[in-house]
Amino acid sequence: MNDKLPTYKIRFEPTGREVTVATDETVMTAARQAGLHINASCGGSGVCGKCRIILEQGAVTDGRSEKLSAEDFARGYRQACLARPDSDLTVRIPAESEMGTGGLTIEVPIRHRAKIHLFDVEKLRREGVFLPPVEKMCLELLQPAANDNMADAGRILQGLNSQYNERRIVITLATLRKIRRALRDKDFLITVTLARPVNERGKNMLVNVQPGNWSHRSYGLAFDIGTTTVHGNLLDLQTGRVLASGSSYNGQISYGEDVISRIIQAEKPEGLALMQGLVVNTINAIIGQMLKKTAIDRDEISSITLAGNTTMTHLLLGLEPHNIRRAPYVPVSIFFPPIRAQDLNINLAEHAVALVYPAISSYVGGDIVAGVMGSGIYRTDKLTLYVDIGTNAEIVIGNREWLVCAACSAGPAFEGGGITHGMRAAAGAISDFSLHPLTFEPMNITIGNKPPIGICGSGLLIIVAALLENGVINPRGKFTHGLSTPRIREGRSGYEYVLVWKEEGGIDRDIVINEVDIENFTRAKAAIYSGIKTLVEEVGLQVSDIEQIILAGAFGSFIDLDSAITVGLLPEVDPARIVYVGNGSLLGAWMSEMSNHIRKDVVEVVRRMTSFELSEVGRFRDQYVASLFLPHTDATLFPATIKRLTAGNNQR
Amino acid sequence: MNDKLPTYKIRFEPTGREVTVATDETVMTAARQAGLHINASCGGSGVCGKCRIILEQGAVTDGRSEKLSAEDFARGYRQACLARPDSDLTVRIPAESEMGTGGLTIEVPIRHRAKIHLFDVEKLRREGVFLPPVEKMCLELLQPAANDNMADAGRILQGLNSQYNERRIVITLATLRKIRRALRDKDFLITVTLARPVNERGKNMLVNVQPGNWSHRSYGLAFDIGTTTVHGNLLDLQTGRVLASGSSYNGQISYGEDVISRIIQAEKPEGLALMQGLVVNTINAIIGQMLKKTAIDRDEISSITLAGNTTMTHLLLGLEPHNIRRAPYVPVSIFFPPIRAQDLNINLAEHAVALVYPAISSYVGGDIVAGVMGSGIYRTDKLTLYVDIGTNAEIVIGNREWLVCAACSAGPAFEGGGITHGMRAAAGAISDFSLHPLTFEPMNITIGNKPPIGICGSGLLIIVAALLENGVINPRGKFTHGLSTPRIREGRSGYEYVLVWKEEGGIDRDIVINEVDIENFTRAKAAIYSGIKTLVEEVGLQVSDIEQIILAGAFGSFIDLDSAITVGLLPEVDPARIVYVGNGSLLGAWMSEMSNHIRKDVVEVVRRMTSFELSEVGRFRDQYVASLFLPHTDATLFPATIKRLTAGNNQR
Repeated sequence: MNDKLPTYKIRFEPTGREVTVATDETVMTAARQAGLHINASCGGSGVCGKCRIILEQGAVTDGRSEKLSAEDFARGYRQACLARPDSDLTVRIPAESEMGTGGLTIEVPIRHRAKIHLFDVEKLRREGVFLPPVEKMCLELLQPAANDNMADAGRILQGLNSQYNERRIVITLATLRKIRRALRDKDFLITVTLARPVNERGKNMLVNVQPGNWSHRSYGLAFDIGTTTVHGNLLDLQTGRVLASGSSYNGQISYGEDVISRIIQAEKPEGLALMQGLVVNTINAIIGQMLKKTAIDRDEISSITLAGNTTMTHLLLGLEPHNIRRAPYVPVSIFFPPIRAQDLNINLAEHAVALVYPAISSYVGGDIVAGVMGSGIYRTDKLTLYVDIGTNAEIVIGNREWLVCAACSAGPAFEGGGITHGMRAAAGAISDFSLHPLTFEPMNITIGNKPPIGICGSGLLIIVAALLENGVINPRGKFTHGLSTPRIREGRSGYEYVLVWKEEGGIDRDIVINEVDIENFTRAKAAIYSGIKTLVEEVGLQVSDIEQIILAGAFGSFIDLDSAITVGLLPEVDPARIVYVGNGSLLGAWMSEMSNHIRKDVVEVVRRMTSFELSEVGRFRDQYVASLFLPHTDATLFPATIKRLTAGNNQR
Repeated sequence: MNDKLPTYKIRFEPTGREVTVATDETVMTAARQAGLHINASCGGSGVCGKCRIILEQGAVTDGRSEKLSAEDFARGYRQACLARPDSDLTVRIPAESEMGTGGLTIEVPIRHRAKIHLFDVEKLRREGVFLPPVEKMCLELLQPAANDNMADAGRILQGLNSQYNERRIVITLATLRKIRRALRDKDFLITVTLARPVNERGKNMLVNVQPGNWSHRSYGLAFDIGTTTVHGNLLDLQTGRVLASGSSYNGQISYGEDVISRIIQAEKPEGLALMQGLVVNTINAIIGQMLKKTAIDRDEISSITLAGNTTMTHLLLGLEPHNIRRAPYVPVSIFFPPIRAQDLNINLAEHAVALVYPAISSYVGGDIVAGVMGSGIYRTDKLTLYVDIGTNAEIVIGNREWLVCAACSAGPAFEGGGITHGMRAAAGAISDFSLHPLTFEPMNITIGNKPPIGICGSGLLIIVAALLENGVINPRGKFTHGLSTPRIREGRSGYEYVLVWKEEGGIDRDIVINEVDIENFTRAKAAIYSGIKTLVEEVGLQVSDIEQIILAGAFGSFIDLDSAITVGLLPEVDPARIVYVGNGSLLGAWMSEMSNHIRKDVVEVVRRMTSFELSEVGRFRDQYVASLFLPHTDATLFPATIKRLTAGNNQR
């Protein structure tokens, strides 16, 4: 959603609902936002031609494929999946687009996305905690004289004391080697780079000196080292702004998609060095991308903060990950000392400092700690649930007083794994969906409005929820037999629902979701929900005590909150109390680059965060089995959802 | 003086004086110790045959050259310069050995050497300050289990806390890379190496981990980086004992003998790297020498402390020394951070820490600071003068309350420079001397009892003092004319005294000392004495307030205290209050390897030590001119000396 694009208001008739959208949205996605169903099997690629609407007022771009005759076009018909607003519009959804419902416009639930948490540098400044871990300061010093022949180093320290009130400074050997010349190059006007200690009682390291004033050019990097993807931000340490971003698949990916396969690789001779080299190459490539986008010199970057899961962190640092995959799952370390970026072969100047986020355990890593720091859960009064859903779902529960965490083996369902037509969130993936409650015809919305080729995690969630809400499947995930639609049929893996007919999609067969897919999905959501419930109860609370939820991870940005609650993935909480922080790991790394106080806090947070190994908690297994039900076997946990589902089923 | 050799008592007749000496001393040096003069022109090499004595009781080894007939030998005659005791002896000095004094045995002043300060590790232990900067500790840890899956690093830290009460520990990246394997190699029995911070509030660095128990094998190095010579000690950090010593000329010496020529060299392109490499090669060679003498592995050395003058320290660390030789004489730094020995290319294990002594100024370096620390002047109540005499003489005056220091440009006279027959203290150098008060015949004692080839610093001092005491020269350093001896004559540089006739010595001409030599000597001693006097008076005290003197440097070990006071080099102080600490720089480095507290103290000491640039002190020039007199123009400064000299002259 690029907020620089112009926005237009679209009014849908006959319901009169209005919605404001940007000019790059289609009329179909606008209808979806307005909670209106338009049949659209082909995912918005214009192939099925079912999504005809009548343009009553205003102008649109496109809106016509060969499925629409010139005559109909002249009468105002457009294809909703292709038409984009050029002005405010009034659009009528004709009866035929709703397939034989006699002119009644079908309303479907308006979907709730989580509010997006925006990073607020100004707030840090107001709170007095804007203090990058590395800072540049300009000093104008007096030249030595017979009665003032203090050493060059002492002169600099004296200047830092008198001009900036800075004390407790150690000058590195590399800096000492440069200061004589630097002082005399520009008549004793220099810029020094100070690397802050975690602890105020610690020493500041004077890591660099430049002749002249360069204090306005101070840059840092924040990196999330994901198992799949590495993301980086190039930051202006004076303003806190992101000047460039970059990302790339983790170079290790050709050695396996999950952490276990990377560990196995690292255990081979030279394997650890290989894995280390691959991820560093990825980081270096992203740094290169970002520098290219800006007029910043590599040497002007003085710090890099990195966060990743425990295995990724071990591989990055060249630590042996062997015991992460073997019970009792012992990492080499959860705290990592500040190091020189060059010691990891990161392509930065000699003085650049690398800071690596600490972890909690083998399966609750620095990425989660970074998310906790970035999202501020450790400073809130409210009982908060933090969930980062990827191959594993990591959950953290707590507030400013206490924090508990655990990793749930959710499996890869949310990333498309174990699902017949599952795929990653890429072009052609069905990512949004609604179901006609009477005809059971789908409204498939794909990423990039491409012909559908599969289902990504957010699509899977909303499909399962829609099937459940409309009574197409029952709480056990089994299809209701005897519904009058050709889309429900018996397939090779039990009953299935056809989302896309072969001729309307982008692959050589029908795209379906079957009972095995739904079972796999249910296992995944059960692993997460039962993890949350177990964790909350371990500290003597109830799921209903949770006051807010913070979602992180790529999946979280697309997650439909109503669906997540409907299927029992997330606890029943007012959607207004759910916040999305995006890439929590990158956010935390960014925060650390802005506020050195975070680095002190993080030590405290890690120390007070209690990690649970769910498999070691007796009741977890029962909780898990109880959660293998949509939304849950215990109806009291989802009162509003159960009420709504019951009402819907009774209507039919 | 090897105290393992047997000692024998020698009684000299007719005086009846007794002295106890080791079996490797000659009867001549024994006589010298007893304050008895025996004519010996040839320096103890047996050539002149003048030092005949009669063995009345006991047995000697050797004691005969072709100068002694078989008949005389049978009668008990021996050559004192060749004879070594094999039992207690009674020896008669016959009249002829004293050359025409009619049987009167000539007594000459018994010489005072400074007491030797011995390094006392046990005292450090008693005071509770025996704490090497690097320590090894053995840990026996529990293996991880399902209910105890703490990270490897955390397990080690927990063990250090519970077993040794050690906290505030940072594990280096290099160590983290080793701990998984190290823990599992010997069933969680490991030895860790902790590098201590200077400050108790600082962090301990865990720099190494070894499987098994190696805590009893912990070694360190102490080095003095001299402009001329580099000295090293290999130390057992458990017992504090020196296991081996080594030394070698500083590899930079081919680029010039003094610091200025080294600086000029370092200013050339690549010159600094060249100088750095040369001194490090020297250090590495000495380490190699010392390891060869012991069964210690290079990797078992965890720390090295280095002390040197400011220029040597800059060259060692690769810091630009350019401004050390240019007014206002500004070094790059006087404090140096702890570094990895490998960062200086010192051939030690990756984990070995290098600690470099801080300096005071461009010309009062880390060698002097080390001497102050090693000798304990900074902790004494007594007003103490510390003098290290080399090419420059550095002086420190003070006590536990305050310290002042300065460098005196004494010139190279004490190292043999600017003296006609001057030489370094090597075999054949006249190092001890007495003068027959009536015949003016010399008793030359040379290093190694070799035929004389020149005069070293300690010899020069004692010769000048003897000439002055016996009225051969006057307080202005000019020869008394008309004394009845062929040894005083007019030479090319004014009057001179012949120490060794060509045929009795080891070179192709007579060895003499002339008035120009004495003038150069006087300038050198005046530079030091006037420096001491200026410094004392700058703090509002008098030279007579000095309560004790600490001598350091190679010259100090051989210095004859009476002579030094007689000529006005040192203030008139009871010789019992003068202590010799040997190589103060090496001593301080050794101390630092034994007691980390020294490193904290040294920061305080450097901060409270006030450095004076003598040339900037107005009265210094006058003081210097007043000191160009033997012992001084101001007789009140040397009351006892003046009284003695006057009495001696009146006798004649």
